[in-house]
Amino acid sequence: MKHYIGPNNPMHAQFNALAAYQACHFAYAFKDGVATLTLNRPERKNPLTFESYAELRDLFRALNSATDVKVIVLTGASGNFCSGGDVHEIIGPLTKMSMPELLEFTRMTGDLIKAMRLCPQPIVAAIDGICAGAGAMMALAADMRLGTAQAKTAFLFTRVGLAGADMGACALLPRLIGQGRASELLFTGRAMSAQEGLQWGFFNTLHEPAELLDKALALAAELAAGPTFAHGMTKTMLHQEWAMTLDQAIEAEAQAQAICMQTQDFTRAYEAFSSKQKPVFQGD
Amino acid sequence: MKHYIGPNNPMHAQFNALAAYQACHFAYAFKDGVATLTLNRPERKNPLTFESYAELRDLFRALNSATDVKVIVLTGASGNFCSGGDVHEIIGPLTKMSMPELLEFTRMTGDLIKAMRLCPQPIVAAIDGICAGAGAMMALAADMRLGTAQAKTAFLFTRVGLAGADMGACALLPRLIGQGRASELLFTGRAMSAQEGLQWGFFNTLHEPAELLDKALALAAELAAGPTFAHGMTKTMLHQEWAMTLDQAIEAEAQAQAICMQTQDFTRAYEAFSSKQKPVFQGD
Amino acid sequence: MKHYIGPNNPMHAQFNALAAYQACHFAYAFKDGVATLTLNRPERKNPLTFESYAELRDLFRALNSATDVKVIVLTGASGNFCSGGDVHEIIGPLTKMSMPELLEFTRMTGDLIKAMRLCPQPIVAAIDGICAGAGAMMALAADMRLGTAQAKTAFLFTRVGLAGADMGACALLPRLIGQGRASELLFTGRAMSAQEGLQWGFFNTLHEPAELLDKALALAAELAAGPTFAHGMTKTMLHQEWAMTLDQAIEAEAQAQAICMQTQDFTRAYEAFSSKQKPVFQGD
Repeated sequence: MKHYIGPNNPMHAQFNALAAYQACHFAYAFKDGVATLTLNRPERKNPLTFESYAELRDLFRALNSATDVKVIVLTGASGNFCSGGDVHEIIGPLTKMSMPELLEFTRMTGDLIKAMRLCPQPIVAAIDGICAGAGAMMALAADMRLGTAQAKTAFLFTRVGLAGADMGACALLPRLIGQGRASELLFTGRAMSAQEGLQWGFFNTLHEPAELLDKALALAAELAAGPTFAHGMTKTMLHQEWAMTLDQAIEAEAQAQAICMQTQDFTRAYEAFSSKQKPVFQGD
Repeated sequence: MKHYIGPNNPMHAQFNALAAYQACHFAYAFKDGVATLTLNRPERKNPLTFESYAELRDLFRALNSATDVKVIVLTGASGNFCSGGDVHEIIGPLTKMSMPELLEFTRMTGDLIKAMRLCPQPIVAAIDGICAGAGAMMALAADMRLGTAQAKTAFLFTRVGLAGADMGACALLPRLIGQGRASELLFTGRAMSAQEGLQWGFFNTLHEPAELLDKALALAAELAAGPTFAHGMTKTMLHQEWAMTLDQAIEAEAQAQAICMQTQDFTRAYEAFSSKQKPVFQGD
Repeated sequence: MKHYIGPNNPMHAQFNALAAYQACHFAYAFKDGVATLTLNRPERKNPLTFESYAELRDLFRALNSATDVKVIVLTGASGNFCSGGDVHEIIGPLTKMSMPELLEFTRMTGDLIKAMRLCPQPIVAAIDGICAGAGAMMALAADMRLGTAQAKTAFLFTRVGLAGADMGACALLPRLIGQGRASELLFTGRAMSAQEGLQWGFFNTLHEPAELLDKALALAAELAAGPTFAHGMTKTMLHQEWAMTLDQAIEAEAQAQAICMQTQDFTRAYEAFSSKQKPVFQGD
């Protein structure tokens, strides 16, 4: 299968590269294997619209086979991450929709989360300021979260009369911060402070606002320089094992890791170690 | 289906209202949508008996269709929450029972926990002093836990020669405080201090003993003034998604939230927001 | 079934006792129901080899029916726990193996973790210094972890070009410290400090290096003096309920606890309590 790897892989006919992707509803930049997505309607704290949801979903789906993108950084412009679904552009229309239309919408937003979990690239979220509703869910669906002391994260679905069950919140949030804390946040909709988020395991680290993006990019660069095929397997298995028994998970990892042991990166690491050098991983 | 909602719903023939419930084995009060259950045998730190177990199970089952009760507060009288199964009234008789009788008992206690998780009302536990054995399990089965610095929570089944596997402890406790801490508490039976409980995510907040019940009632009032149909869906989904894959959970929430988007509370929230007012939710 | 319990149980023909076990690839000591396993190649920080993996797996499997061993302490010699798979003795050969051979290896290592989770004895890990790779996984598979301020725990599979999915890491680690922190450790391979490990729930307690083993042995002695049949049931149910629904878990515990209520230890506890004495448990 070796010759199937890389930009000429026929299984990646359509999306073998997203370096030059042109985004419509957010900013997109690419450098050294790292794609940076910036939600950028700062005058309204970067809300989501029907169009931006759909484009995000489609982009994360395309990333599934974009072998040139190794790591994704997700952030927001001008001191806020994301204010969630726009009140006028999303919530208003939803109050007038039929059930099939509503389900089409909730499935689209859920599909965005699925796509974020199913793409092989680790996702680093850089979160300052407001991180609310669907924005909080995108943060939750990232693999790692870097924040600032000003970050306010609120699963505020209840504030608009809805359930805390949105885009997988009742499954994801308890796994990060525990069932008791998650229940409080989902039932009350109150904002989790940055310090709580750090202590509870929502944030991996907190940084000064001016340094946040650089820190996220540095982490992304470190990951992009790693064994990216194996990173993709780590991400896949974290997802696969969500509801397996422990015995099933152990067998699944025996298979997954045996696959990784036939990559060149594993051999590169051993050879570098044997010659007391730092391995240079290439993701195959 | 609109006309099926409310006190005249024929599907709620027997238990459409529990405002006026008269409890036999604990104290019961109802005000403004909030039912307060107080374990009240303070001379023995509020132990449970066969009769109180059964009545609690039956009440929580009835709450499943009692649309007048929006939130439940669970507490204990006179500075203690609950000392668990009474040694003389429960443990003694158990040592003499046949296996079918034992299983009938353990299923009854388990059914209490199931009923607490299956009723749509959020349960706020207010916990001071001793919170032990089956009492600790009732606390664990609540949705949120408010405590005091004096709260001592012990899963002390091992101290009476039993397994830590009681009423769902091996499933619930790890999801709140992590598998490693839960293992220690279940194997050793040692008391978790209030401070540990707060740091580990068992308690949501700690309060002065004199303020504990008021704080719990204030939280309950806040929840009762919220979109209670949606709260019930949040609770249902937290339960449903316990062992789903993440993809299944996301689809389940797409359906659950689409249902909530057809409630009047969602429209009320949008209309209030549009006119810069605070929404008044009614739970339908 | 009473007469089947104990050293003459015909179901335990081969391994009814491991008090006198003679280990080849690590040190083994037995005293008062507690077996202490010490990884002891200190000149290389106690790495694992093909032989030590296999012997550990076989020993933990044998412990499944060794009724004389009540608790296991797992530690490393000379200030380190375990440096993981030996680079020269394991990683080098792996880079040259066929897929069936690789899978045989990853299944062997996974089977060690399964055997640690399936034996009825609680496992107390005493962790000082380096705790890396497969060593970190053995620590993770223990029931409780005591550490020192110098303990450095690293799931460093990614550093050798592999996935974080090794021996069940993607299932176990999130359940102990949360999905977000686990993701960071598995993607980056960075060491978790002892203080982080304590705050996050990986370590139960931290101790002075000189006192670590004594503390672990004291905890083990406490557990060995407990209702060890019930301890085995606690461990079994923590494992069984890993991916059950909560309703299933509650029914499973109703059955498990009913079994424990027919043990002599339960009766002993009640009788001791009734006469205001401390129960003397015997594990049957």
